[in-house]
Amino acid sequence: LATAQDRLVEKDFANSVGAATAPYAAIDSLEDLKDAMAGIGPRAVLKTRRLGYDGKGQVMLDQGADLEQAWQALGGAPSILEGYIPFDSEISVIAARGLDGTIGTYPAIANQHKHHILDRSEVPADLPADQARRAIAMATDLAAALDYVGVLAVEMFVVGDELLVNEIAPRVHNSGHWSIEGAVTSQFEQHIRAICGLPLGNMALRGRVEMRNLIGDDVAQVPALLAEPGAHVHLYGKTEVRTGRKMGHVTRMLRDDGAA
Amino acid sequence: LATAQDRLVEKDFANSVGAATAPYAAIDSLEDLKDAMAGIGPRAVLKTRRLGYDGKGQVMLDQGADLEQAWQALGGAPSILEGYIPFDSEISVIAARGLDGTIGTYPAIANQHKHHILDRSEVPADLPADQARRAIAMATDLAAALDYVGVLAVEMFVVGDELLVNEIAPRVHNSGHWSIEGAVTSQFEQHIRAICGLPLGNMALRGRVEMRNLIGDDVAQVPALLAEPGAHVHLYGKTEVRTGRKMGHVTRMLRDDGAA
Repeated sequence: LATAQDRLVEKDFANSVGAATAPYAAIDSLEDLKDAMAGIGPRAVLKTRRLGYDGKGQVMLDQGADLEQAWQALGGAPSILEGYIPFDSEISVIAARGLDGTIGTYPAIANQHKHHILDRSEVPADLPADQARRAIAMATDLAAALDYVGVLAVEMFVVGDELLVNEIAPRVHNSGHWSIEGAVTSQFEQHIRAICGLPLGNMALRGRVEMRNLIGDDVAQVPALLAEPGAHVHLYGKTEVRTGRKMGHVTRMLRDDGAA
Repeated sequence: LATAQDRLVEKDFANSVGAATAPYAAIDSLEDLKDAMAGIGPRAVLKTRRLGYDGKGQVMLDQGADLEQAWQALGGAPSILEGYIPFDSEISVIAARGLDGTIGTYPAIANQHKHHILDRSEVPADLPADQARRAIAMATDLAAALDYVGVLAVEMFVVGDELLVNEIAPRVHNSGHWSIEGAVTSQFEQHIRAICGLPLGNMALRGRVEMRNLIGDDVAQVPALLAEPGAHVHLYGKTEVRTGRKMGHVTRMLRDDGAA
């Protein structure tokens, strides 16, 4: 947990296991930031080391950015500067590791974000077989090296033939919500199995599947979604709609030709 | 509800809708019982009109049975005598009827009982197409005639080419628990959709599927079931194991050749 809570420790750890990341540097002062930009910039992201999610606690930097303003925007908290990677796509791999060390994974998941928030996941991701295998191996290696027990998600950037670890999320993950209907064993059941010392369940897909988040006003779609045959609607019981708030999600099994 | 709570009203109602039942007679005294046995006996079942389930509140009668003892066993409660039917098999049809009168059904379900308690359900039941259609039509007709809203199960005996209504259960039903994994929309979600006035969900199967109840000591199988890939184990959180008590169930998707 400590490893995943701190972006710097997380990236050091990933690299130590042989999983590549974007270039990064620890930032504890405006001087650090200026120095790091010289090496990593001009396009980079300044992030707090702790407690950021869904794009919160981060500032995009580009040529001519006001570094002092950026540093103040994060309140001078211990931070990390990450080189901006013009990635082709984003994927995640969700792994489960049991008390006995057994590790299972779902196939790699293709993720699309809007405004830094996950919008849509589809599984399996459309990747060359070798790259898909490497993604699975990276998540498996990370789970084993962490001596982790439970369900864990590894977010990765696909950059040409390369895979760069973006984040390790030590928990069930939004990009795995499709597993409720789309896999033999859901990530939620799998997590309980793992932490209770039960045998891991079968992580095979029931078919191609997509999940779309219902963010903010998207909840207005719910009546139509409930009338759509085969759309599985999940609402989180949040009484207040706010912009950017995850209100629920909808899962659809996809036909082989990609139509819903 | 009143119709399904009273076995006599239930059977009168089924016959009024054109759904056949086993022969039966109302029993309010030992004299009634003696008279009815002359017509319906010698093999028959004496049941209380209300509050019986899983074989409770009923006495099997055969040639030379002590009728006075049987009548006392039920405490002299208003009862019904049903002719014993040497049926070939038992099926159920689960229907859902929405607030707007829309009716949907799952395919007919084949049920096997042990000691009067449901042991195993498999869907679709192996019935001639015409008989399967008639079973669906009977359940649909009964739901409509009752002006029922929600999920309802109709248990039927298969006797050669005939179908006899055994019981109408105005609720989600044990023989439909497989729908959690085996259908696009489970009977539980469908019931909520129906009573909330939402569109009914898709009741198509995801494949052939079986459900086995875990009765009493069957819970000892749970560790092995949890290690069985693809077995979906459901436990009801009952702390005390008792003979004949439904402790949970397990659902399996079946391959086309019938193997688990």
